[in-house]
Amino acid sequence: MLPLPQFDHASDEPIYRQLYAFVREAILSGRLAPGERIPPTRELAGQLGLNRTTVASAYELLETEGLIRGHVGRGSFVAGPAPLDTSILWNERFLSAPLADPPIPSLPPGGETISFTSARPAEDLFPIDEFRAACLEVVQGGEAAAILQLGSPFGYAPLRRHLLAGAPAHDDLLITNGCQQALDLLQRLFTQPGDAVLVEDPIYPGLKNVFARAGVRTVGVPVGPDGIDVEALPRLIARERPRMLVVTPNFQNPTGVTMPLAARHALLKIARAAGLVLVENDIYGDLRYQGEALPTLKQLDETGDTLQIKSYSKLAFPGLRVGWIAGPHPVIVRLADLKQWIDLHSDQLSQAVLLRFSESGRLAKHRQRMIEAGTARLHAVLAACQQYLPAGSRFTRPQGGMNLWVRLPEPLDATELLPRAQALGVSYLPGRYFAVSRTEPGALRLSFAGLPPDRIEKGLRILGSLFVEEVERMRSARSAGLAPAIV
Amino acid sequence: MLPLPQFDHASDEPIYRQLYAFVREAILSGRLAPGERIPPTRELAGQLGLNRTTVASAYELLETEGLIRGHVGRGSFVAGPAPLDTSILWNERFLSAPLADPPIPSLPPGGETISFTSARPAEDLFPIDEFRAACLEVVQGGEAAAILQLGSPFGYAPLRRHLLAGAPAHDDLLITNGCQQALDLLQRLFTQPGDAVLVEDPIYPGLKNVFARAGVRTVGVPVGPDGIDVEALPRLIARERPRMLVVTPNFQNPTGVTMPLAARHALLKIARAAGLVLVENDIYGDLRYQGEALPTLKQLDETGDTLQIKSYSKLAFPGLRVGWIAGPHPVIVRLADLKQWIDLHSDQLSQAVLLRFSESGRLAKHRQRMIEAGTARLHAVLAACQQYLPAGSRFTRPQGGMNLWVRLPEPLDATELLPRAQALGVSYLPGRYFAVSRTEPGALRLSFAGLPPDRIEKGLRILGSLFVEEVERMRSARSAGLAPAIV
Repeated sequence: MLPLPQFDHASDEPIYRQLYAFVREAILSGRLAPGERIPPTRELAGQLGLNRTTVASAYELLETEGLIRGHVGRGSFVAGPAPLDTSILWNERFLSAPLADPPIPSLPPGGETISFTSARPAEDLFPIDEFRAACLEVVQGGEAAAILQLGSPFGYAPLRRHLLAGAPAHDDLLITNGCQQALDLLQRLFTQPGDAVLVEDPIYPGLKNVFARAGVRTVGVPVGPDGIDVEALPRLIARERPRMLVVTPNFQNPTGVTMPLAARHALLKIARAAGLVLVENDIYGDLRYQGEALPTLKQLDETGDTLQIKSYSKLAFPGLRVGWIAGPHPVIVRLADLKQWIDLHSDQLSQAVLLRFSESGRLAKHRQRMIEAGTARLHAVLAACQQYLPAGSRFTRPQGGMNLWVRLPEPLDATELLPRAQALGVSYLPGRYFAVSRTEPGALRLSFAGLPPDRIEKGLRILGSLFVEEVERMRSARSAGLAPAIV
Repeated sequence: MLPLPQFDHASDEPIYRQLYAFVREAILSGRLAPGERIPPTRELAGQLGLNRTTVASAYELLETEGLIRGHVGRGSFVAGPAPLDTSILWNERFLSAPLADPPIPSLPPGGETISFTSARPAEDLFPIDEFRAACLEVVQGGEAAAILQLGSPFGYAPLRRHLLAGAPAHDDLLITNGCQQALDLLQRLFTQPGDAVLVEDPIYPGLKNVFARAGVRTVGVPVGPDGIDVEALPRLIARERPRMLVVTPNFQNPTGVTMPLAARHALLKIARAAGLVLVENDIYGDLRYQGEALPTLKQLDETGDTLQIKSYSKLAFPGLRVGWIAGPHPVIVRLADLKQWIDLHSDQLSQAVLLRFSESGRLAKHRQRMIEAGTARLHAVLAACQQYLPAGSRFTRPQGGMNLWVRLPEPLDATELLPRAQALGVSYLPGRYFAVSRTEPGALRLSFAGLPPDRIEKGLRILGSLFVEEVERMRSARSAGLAPAIV
């Protein structure tokens, strides 16, 4: 076993992240061998004088990353293969660049946790029988052989026709492996290292990472209650000379906010005057629970130059990787050319099943159920935030989507508080995951769409008590002249 | 309608390619508007004084690229959307880089063509009923909800376990969207613009393109009857200082040749001494029709450092995009980290269906049928090459896979002859698609695995007559003191 790690209690890095980094380094360097047992959380917490949940949070990250594996009743082990009798110094010679941000812990460590961490649909709302029926219709239909044969880089033709049916006449369309690949393709086609891209701040980490990995600078445009701050754009465009602007007008991730109609018009005008590539991410657009639907940028854009990305992942099934980019024909042709050499084309079985699911009316029915459930969940999260969050907290009031953004009163730090929340059985994502150009230590994202109302209420009751208690502890520490304790 | 194009009859570029480029440019620039009718092949051939098949070959390329669309009985039209009232000079400002090589025409223009162009399994051998059964078992099983939910960037865990079951203990594994994405991921992880990568010459164009697009130099290593020329490696390594070597020891694409055991050992030794990232493409490895199976580089490599890529595309269904990379754990962790921000993870429905197809024994049964059919097809293509190709032709003698490489006697040019072959109802791919550092004008690839033996025999009879006739025409032209005519 390893020597015990030293923690830096004065660091910005929370202890669970320090522990995670320590064990990860030990595994990747080979000091902890595959198959080796690592101590149960309770035991290690005792050895290190930590809360058991702090250790569990570190293990959760390691497990998400595939570095350790838990076996029920047998503890956790270093995952992966037997030691390698390598001839290549992989880490030194080839793999020296740092890993990206650690993957977001998307799976709660146990069934008991109330997890607000993941912006994905609730499994218990999956219409499994309807999905089965669509699947059967596809595989028993006459197109099965065509689906199994090599396809087109543009996508499965019947699905493309279906998606283009309601679209403006000047649109063309490319099927992608979900919105994540759409972003990657757009990055590859339009940006070079050193280019600047304007993005909302805060923003979904997958978007930041796509550009960061390619050496492209992401410049954050602040997000307020009306979405991206349109008035900040001219100054940023003049200063940064960006090539592209990516924006989510409907139910932005992580804040959940929506741009009003006037802001959409203003943004289009500014983007067009600057000659920017304008990318509209409308992945949540079909999940409106309140208020009137607004036209998308793509619908408002008379030039047809807006590139819009959408997907079936949020509305239907994230495990089937089918999204798309709609935009001008010359751009779509280039994107398809690029996609051909990246992965030939998207999987055709899922394209055909989702087409059937949609054409048969099942998607519309399912959407209705998702909206009913979402409405109740949104209502529950707003009421619970109002009731339980400490005085001085602010939170957004989304009209749809899956996420809500909370700003705790100063000096509360959402990252510091997370392990304690997890110890109480509740999980969320601290704001720093989403930060671009500015960090808000008190911010956190609550993804509410995956939880039934009673769990939302219970989760926020627990979080609220923790936050209120911390505010009071800090206030009494301050009034006693003490520095705030580091947790 | 456009002014008629001017052809450069002295150019290396065949006429059908010149016509294709002319029409494509007209469409992409907007001079030919979407929805506009383009003349039927017969009419345009008359206007231009060309063979009708030359025009058909150009249209076929345009159609494959999605630029034109044919309607039975109504002629062909410029595909895509209505004209765009653009505010952005897409072509000038953003899309000025040239398109990659035009996509390989993978679809024969009509049912009558005998197409040797595509290295893919025959649709008529697809075990549709077995596929259906595997599909049903998956969607009716208890894992349906898990398949539909967001997955792991490493791949669907049960499939990973299945694929790793027979692998060396030090292997780890990442599921990819087929081998094409595996190549793209390896390029992104290991190479920078300006780096050199050693590849077989000739090679599958998808491999060339992955590196070329990233500004990575591909350096061709000649391929002989025993595969990549191992003796040429030390000199090329010293001169080019490559970072990576990609090699296909079994049934290489396009040549079909196989490396003997001694060459595999020698290559491993050289690659290890040079510290190269060694990538073994074994996509055809399961399709051996003759001779004894040889151990793969991965199996021979005691260090475990070889990265092996494989896929279900050739053995089973290319429309389901499931392949994988096996290799050392630290590399797989990095590749998964990369994949997460490229497209989150591969489609889970196809992963689960292929796992079921494999676990249930259906894949092994299907492989047996593929091998029986392949054996007969290989026998037919070898016999027909022997019988029909002109004296002085050389061709490889594959023991498996889908491809065979022909070198016609000088001065025959396979690119020039293609439109005439297509006019006679037979199609193949000229060698220039596969050239890296050297061009062989007389070379062509015959993909035989998709055709039944009688079609193979008939196709080669037609090709053989054309080639023999051309040899004789050239010989008599030469003996009459005339320069060879340009077709």
